[in-house]
Amino acid sequence: MSSLTVKDVERAAERLHRVLHATPLTRSETFSEVAGSDIYLKYENLQKTGSFKIRGAYNKICELKEQGEVTSVVAASAGNHAQGVAFASSLLGVESMIVMPRSTPIAKVKATEDYGAKVLLMGDCYDDACAAAQQICTEQGAHFIHPFDDLSVIAGQATIGHDILKDLPNVDIVFIPAGGGGLLAGVSFYLKHINPRIKIIGVQAAGAAAIERSFKAKQLCSIDTVSTIADGIAVKTPGTKTVNLINKYADDVMTVSDAEISSVILNLMERCKQVVEPAGAVSLAAALSCAEELRGKRSVCLLSGGNIDVSFIHRIIEIGLVARGRKLKFKTVLPDVPGSLEQVSRLIAEKHANIIWVQYDRIGADLDPSDVILHIACEVSDREHGQTVIDTLESEGYKVIAE
Amino acid sequence: MSSLTVKDVERAAERLHRVLHATPLTRSETFSEVAGSDIYLKYENLQKTGSFKIRGAYNKICELKEQGEVTSVVAASAGNHAQGVAFASSLLGVESMIVMPRSTPIAKVKATEDYGAKVLLMGDCYDDACAAAQQICTEQGAHFIHPFDDLSVIAGQATIGHDILKDLPNVDIVFIPAGGGGLLAGVSFYLKHINPRIKIIGVQAAGAAAIERSFKAKQLCSIDTVSTIADGIAVKTPGTKTVNLINKYADDVMTVSDAEISSVILNLMERCKQVVEPAGAVSLAAALSCAEELRGKRSVCLLSGGNIDVSFIHRIIEIGLVARGRKLKFKTVLPDVPGSLEQVSRLIAEKHANIIWVQYDRIGADLDPSDVILHIACEVSDREHGQTVIDTLESEGYKVIAE
Repeated sequence: MSSLTVKDVERAAERLHRVLHATPLTRSETFSEVAGSDIYLKYENLQKTGSFKIRGAYNKICELKEQGEVTSVVAASAGNHAQGVAFASSLLGVESMIVMPRSTPIAKVKATEDYGAKVLLMGDCYDDACAAAQQICTEQGAHFIHPFDDLSVIAGQATIGHDILKDLPNVDIVFIPAGGGGLLAGVSFYLKHINPRIKIIGVQAAGAAAIERSFKAKQLCSIDTVSTIADGIAVKTPGTKTVNLINKYADDVMTVSDAEISSVILNLMERCKQVVEPAGAVSLAAALSCAEELRGKRSVCLLSGGNIDVSFIHRIIEIGLVARGRKLKFKTVLPDVPGSLEQVSRLIAEKHANIIWVQYDRIGADLDPSDVILHIACEVSDREHGQTVIDTLESEGYKVIAE
Repeated sequence: MSSLTVKDVERAAERLHRVLHATPLTRSETFSEVAGSDIYLKYENLQKTGSFKIRGAYNKICELKEQGEVTSVVAASAGNHAQGVAFASSLLGVESMIVMPRSTPIAKVKATEDYGAKVLLMGDCYDDACAAAQQICTEQGAHFIHPFDDLSVIAGQATIGHDILKDLPNVDIVFIPAGGGGLLAGVSFYLKHINPRIKIIGVQAAGAAAIERSFKAKQLCSIDTVSTIADGIAVKTPGTKTVNLINKYADDVMTVSDAEISSVILNLMERCKQVVEPAGAVSLAAALSCAEELRGKRSVCLLSGGNIDVSFIHRIIEIGLVARGRKLKFKTVLPDVPGSLEQVSRLIAEKHANIIWVQYDRIGADLDPSDVILHIACEVSDREHGQTVIDTLESEGYKVIAE
């Protein structure tokens, strides 16, 4: 494929239609109310393999098969692309080999193997694994499936634009996550060709904003380091093909912070009962951050994937609970005599706060030898409840210092 | 309404159709593979207000309106019924007052107020709040909306049976959560009337199994205490109307443990990207526990609600991580000299395990004065990874004791 056409995207949509889920696009009452305009969510976290990546991989391997003999494909990825290529290959009866960095968690290796791929652990980082994968292709004559900088892959991702138009023909604005740029390139190319009045906003994590920089500089830019919880879009060097398309067709590229992403993940769980990965939550975070500009418009936020490790959800909830004042941590000084802890814990219990952690500390440069420092963490209903616990202790003469 | 008819359920379905979500019923590839038979999930966690309770509440208040003048309704609940009554009342332009126990978390109070209800905090437990609510009704001439033992409420819940048949006419078995029994009574009444060959299995939490006991005893039984994480179905005394219907129409009532419920909640988040509350997860837990008997059949598990507090998800993940060997906690004895901690932490770091908690302990009856006990918790990829951390430490001469 030498250049992308609308026909390519429509052909991809036809191919995918037969094997993938038609993921829901629904108006979110909660977020529409928060934003003060119509916010629609495209639940691509419910796609097969848990992300949109299967679209590009399936379309690419389909085309390879249509073009001639293809018996095996190779990809490098420790994430959604790995599962997309593995599952697409199984559907199409093609052998697949995925090269992953040695540090990849066993769970991800097993998930990819379960989709039918052979997994090879090589190198210390993604770049090493990628180099190894390309060498294998050269040696064995297998086809390398690039995660984003390939027009057939881009055409596959663009089918989400096709889906959106089918379900919401009068959409005004679309927010799309961007890392390597395949999804943003494809969707903006397609939508702008069908209806140039639709506004396309790419969204990146602030700590990995190579595409934002490339968009502003009007040329491909790399960044030296990435630092974000949105590992799915933490890319140092986007594609030349993707950046060309994005710079031509996207209206803007914005960034959101890790704190905004965490808050959106938590809200999506609480209000929409949906598990969305950090890279998938950036689109909604961006829409909420510019709510004023969306008034009177219909916006679609693409929730691009849902593959988030539970230990990570655990951490996000922890941060959220602290941010909302649901966890209270403080220290206070007690006389080092029997009964001291009893009195403090009785006061806390009377206020229905639940102690979850305590620590005694007798070592302190300015600590009176007859005193001890008590560190306490408790669960409370909200900030107000936490304050009544503190007020109660202070009214009984304890000096409470927040931690 | 003196007795329930199929027509009542169909009329309810018509009423609800106009205002509620048609929640998805889809085949779960993951759980079908685990069970070795076709498992369909009915995602009522995606219903408005986050649970099925809106169905019964809306139908009841609709009927009251159709029967004559109704200006206000009262309910007692700190859970899904509260939000169902509040939202249904708002939709129908009726005033609602919800009585909640004083200990109800502020967040739940606010959520119910946001749906348009006036919230009254009274009493120390649900029974107190319920008595207060009924007194208010007597004094003010308002209508009391019972959470389950009311035929109009039961007809509303039964509409889920109507939905299931529409989407999957050839269903063989349906698993339904049961607490007070309104949902189970309604759905089993309706499905058995339409197709007596459909098998209906009620599911309760093992620690709150009054309906299971009532089913076996063929008469209404209460239990003295409830103990389960599934607060939405922790009911001591089910309804007389619901138990009559269940004993007549259900094929069986089974129970599941809190451990099974927790595991299913975690699996639903990881594999289906869905947040489901403990009471809503019992149906799938039950199906998985009797997978052998489902071979060759099409089973529907009703995920009845998704209102679970994030701090609770936090705890469920914690339990799940430990159960899967993703958290490793141990103690070991170190010489009490500079550099001791450095050596241990270097060995752990070399094995790519992430230390999340350490504690030094110098107080031990049988501890050598020149030694110190070190307690450590780390994150590891899986049980195997944890074992390599332990093996490494032991090969360096440390005695490792699991905690």
